[in-house]
Amino acid sequence: MTTRGRSVVPSAAESHPPLRVALLGCGVVGTQVARLLTEQADDLASRVGARLELVGIAVRDAAAPRDAAIDRSLLTEDAEGLVARADVVVEVMGGTEPARALLLRAIEAGAAVVTANKALLAEDGPTLYKAADAAGVDIYFEAAVAGAIPIVRPVRESLAGDHVRRVLGIVNGTTNYVLDQMATTGMGLEEAVKEAQDLGYAEADPTADVEGYDAAAKAAILASLAFHTRVSLDDVAREGIMSVTAADVAWAAQTGHVIKLLAIAELRDGTSAGGSAGVSVRVHPALVPTSHPLANVRGSFNAVFVEAESAGELMFYGRGAGGAPTASAVLGDVVSAARHRVLGGKGPQESTYAELAILPASAAVTRYQVRLDVDDRPGVLAQVAHALAEHGVSIEAVRQPTAPGGADAEGGVAELLITTHAAPESALAATVAAVAGLDPVRTITSVLRVEGA
Amino acid sequence: MTTRGRSVVPSAAESHPPLRVALLGCGVVGTQVARLLTEQADDLASRVGARLELVGIAVRDAAAPRDAAIDRSLLTEDAEGLVARADVVVEVMGGTEPARALLLRAIEAGAAVVTANKALLAEDGPTLYKAADAAGVDIYFEAAVAGAIPIVRPVRESLAGDHVRRVLGIVNGTTNYVLDQMATTGMGLEEAVKEAQDLGYAEADPTADVEGYDAAAKAAILASLAFHTRVSLDDVAREGIMSVTAADVAWAAQTGHVIKLLAIAELRDGTSAGGSAGVSVRVHPALVPTSHPLANVRGSFNAVFVEAESAGELMFYGRGAGGAPTASAVLGDVVSAARHRVLGGKGPQESTYAELAILPASAAVTRYQVRLDVDDRPGVLAQVAHALAEHGVSIEAVRQPTAPGGADAEGGVAELLITTHAAPESALAATVAAVAGLDPVRTITSVLRVEGA
Repeated sequence: MTTRGRSVVPSAAESHPPLRVALLGCGVVGTQVARLLTEQADDLASRVGARLELVGIAVRDAAAPRDAAIDRSLLTEDAEGLVARADVVVEVMGGTEPARALLLRAIEAGAAVVTANKALLAEDGPTLYKAADAAGVDIYFEAAVAGAIPIVRPVRESLAGDHVRRVLGIVNGTTNYVLDQMATTGMGLEEAVKEAQDLGYAEADPTADVEGYDAAAKAAILASLAFHTRVSLDDVAREGIMSVTAADVAWAAQTGHVIKLLAIAELRDGTSAGGSAGVSVRVHPALVPTSHPLANVRGSFNAVFVEAESAGELMFYGRGAGGAPTASAVLGDVVSAARHRVLGGKGPQESTYAELAILPASAAVTRYQVRLDVDDRPGVLAQVAHALAEHGVSIEAVRQPTAPGGADAEGGVAELLITTHAAPESALAATVAAVAGLDPVRTITSVLRVEGA
Repeated sequence: MTTRGRSVVPSAAESHPPLRVALLGCGVVGTQVARLLTEQADDLASRVGARLELVGIAVRDAAAPRDAAIDRSLLTEDAEGLVARADVVVEVMGGTEPARALLLRAIEAGAAVVTANKALLAEDGPTLYKAADAAGVDIYFEAAVAGAIPIVRPVRESLAGDHVRRVLGIVNGTTNYVLDQMATTGMGLEEAVKEAQDLGYAEADPTADVEGYDAAAKAAILASLAFHTRVSLDDVAREGIMSVTAADVAWAAQTGHVIKLLAIAELRDGTSAGGSAGVSVRVHPALVPTSHPLANVRGSFNAVFVEAESAGELMFYGRGAGGAPTASAVLGDVVSAARHRVLGGKGPQESTYAELAILPASAAVTRYQVRLDVDDRPGVLAQVAHALAEHGVSIEAVRQPTAPGGADAEGGVAELLITTHAAPESALAATVAAVAGLDPVRTITSVLRVEGA
């Protein structure tokens, strides 16, 4: 069996009967989830040990227009009926009702549930967690906080042997984009919000973002997770970014800070200056030192910074919103829930089911930055460029700069700095050897690869 | 039941008999694991639903000196005997043998295993994974890659419904510290390595770090995880940092890059320039653009940057080494393994077992940066400082700076910028109100909190 160019070793567990997946909601995220469940069906089957069969998609209006990826025969307006015949219920409809009622019904019926619904979890998550506990079924909600960023699973599981002391999150991409634009261009808040709206990063009514409501919902969920205690949206002190001025942003830069809208959850032991013991959960704009990892979270990205007793400082960074990133988080949860169904008490096994070729070092494709000393006379650059072209390596830039130390070319020697486009390592290595052999080339001073560009 | 100042609601599942934990190895990490298992026994019992009983610690020499936190009566030189009577075996001894034999024996005996042994997993991980699969037991190894950073669980589980395309990791803290020092101070490689040795960040023999062997082992594990395929240490093309010069580092800065030792695992589909299809796994120094999230990973921190098809760009950041951070990762795995034992087929439930007080917004402890316009005459600063002191708020700094726009004080008005030390929100708010009421204060222009400092 081959999927997407990889050979996949079929697992014995695939003899397990298919698991029935019900999808509640077919908006931006739901459409992506449905698409991936179909397109990657073979891959998912390998990972789960059983096929995942999408048995229906509950929508409000089955006649409404849909993305072409959606099999219309799966659409139903009978969400309750759909839930009753599923092994795994995936809720991406949003809002508190009927989402809550449907999830509780799914849990009672013994289905595992996956939800991306931050509003519902922030308002009443513990009710769902307790219902799942009582029924002995799984509830997963990685997508409800910070989209594609795995934060729920690390906090619930990886840090289960540690104590979280503080969580600082940039969990709203719209406001982060706005504040970042203000810092980068000097523009005012209203102008930056307008730009974000034009680019589709902000809604026509940006209240939920700029007033911090969205961040507050995520803060409540993060605080509940981190401190194993019930925190709801009403417990979160909230302040938006509307009062942040261009002058604030400029002053922040002057004092070595950037302004970020932070979701903060802190455990206070009551011993420090005038504080009481308990959990403090709040959302407000804050000055963050430019040296702090959160300060470098740019544009519409999200990040969650965690301070734990033994682990120290951790940060999780990625796309906090968008159909595909959120669908990735949802599918990860679906696979986890489904694997538990198939494997029973066993945890996640690392099945090396794909048998991929390991490429030799020479097959890596990368970019080179080569520094070399050459005779300082006309035509040398052309000669070097010709040697590269002969080996099929194209040049991104050649510079003949002043050395960082400020020393100029001396004794008829000039320094060249060549950056190539991506090419196979073997071609690059052969090229460097050829260049080294050129008459006017005195020394190859340095060869470094460029990554992450 | 109260542990560490939090009220913990006892779980019904605590009626489950204790789980026997065997610890193999008692070095820096093992000592921390033993300490945490003892100190946090009540907390761990709440999280697992059963008590974790440390039944023995296998060491080479039971008579050797140990940290005072170690209960010497637990020490044994009979590792095989210890393994035979455990529910969960935790291996932190390192090296391939006898670690491999002991883990295989534990797996055969039906115990769940947790290991932090990157050398063993890089050499022969798939043998262990397959043995665990066959025996139907759990194997966890979060601590084997990048210490405290949750990377194994996110890649195995959170991204289980996605396709990883590329992993770029800064996975060796010693070399990252060395390269960072070179970039910051302009010092040469040898001097930076010497300094790292003096500070205890580098071993007396730094070969495993500076030649990239440590990073290569982690690259092999990451590649196996990300691409579900068997990659061992021998498959990794490896180049260390010994050839990186101060001039390279200076040139990198000049062209908008930093030099990082990267562990790279890439899936190549064979369609791009001259490349073949398969997995490329390599470790080498590379130029990384300063705008890339990895460029800001400073000092001895680690980070793993993941590019996935749907999720997009993700980064995981934290402490990659050290006793306490690594022990945190090990304990997270122990809790996961133990919960699976106790709960059977159920996944991780979010039990809100702690009932903590939610503090009001006024109880938050934070720092303020206050900007205000005041009359430009002597004594005003003292008057403002006095008002702060009266409310028990201490001042970190007062500045009377030139505005970022360059405009100087005009019309007898000066601008003051006050940064406070940490104080309760209520005290800060009262102080700001008092300052606003002072005669020479014209306007409070801005009040912003400072976080992350």
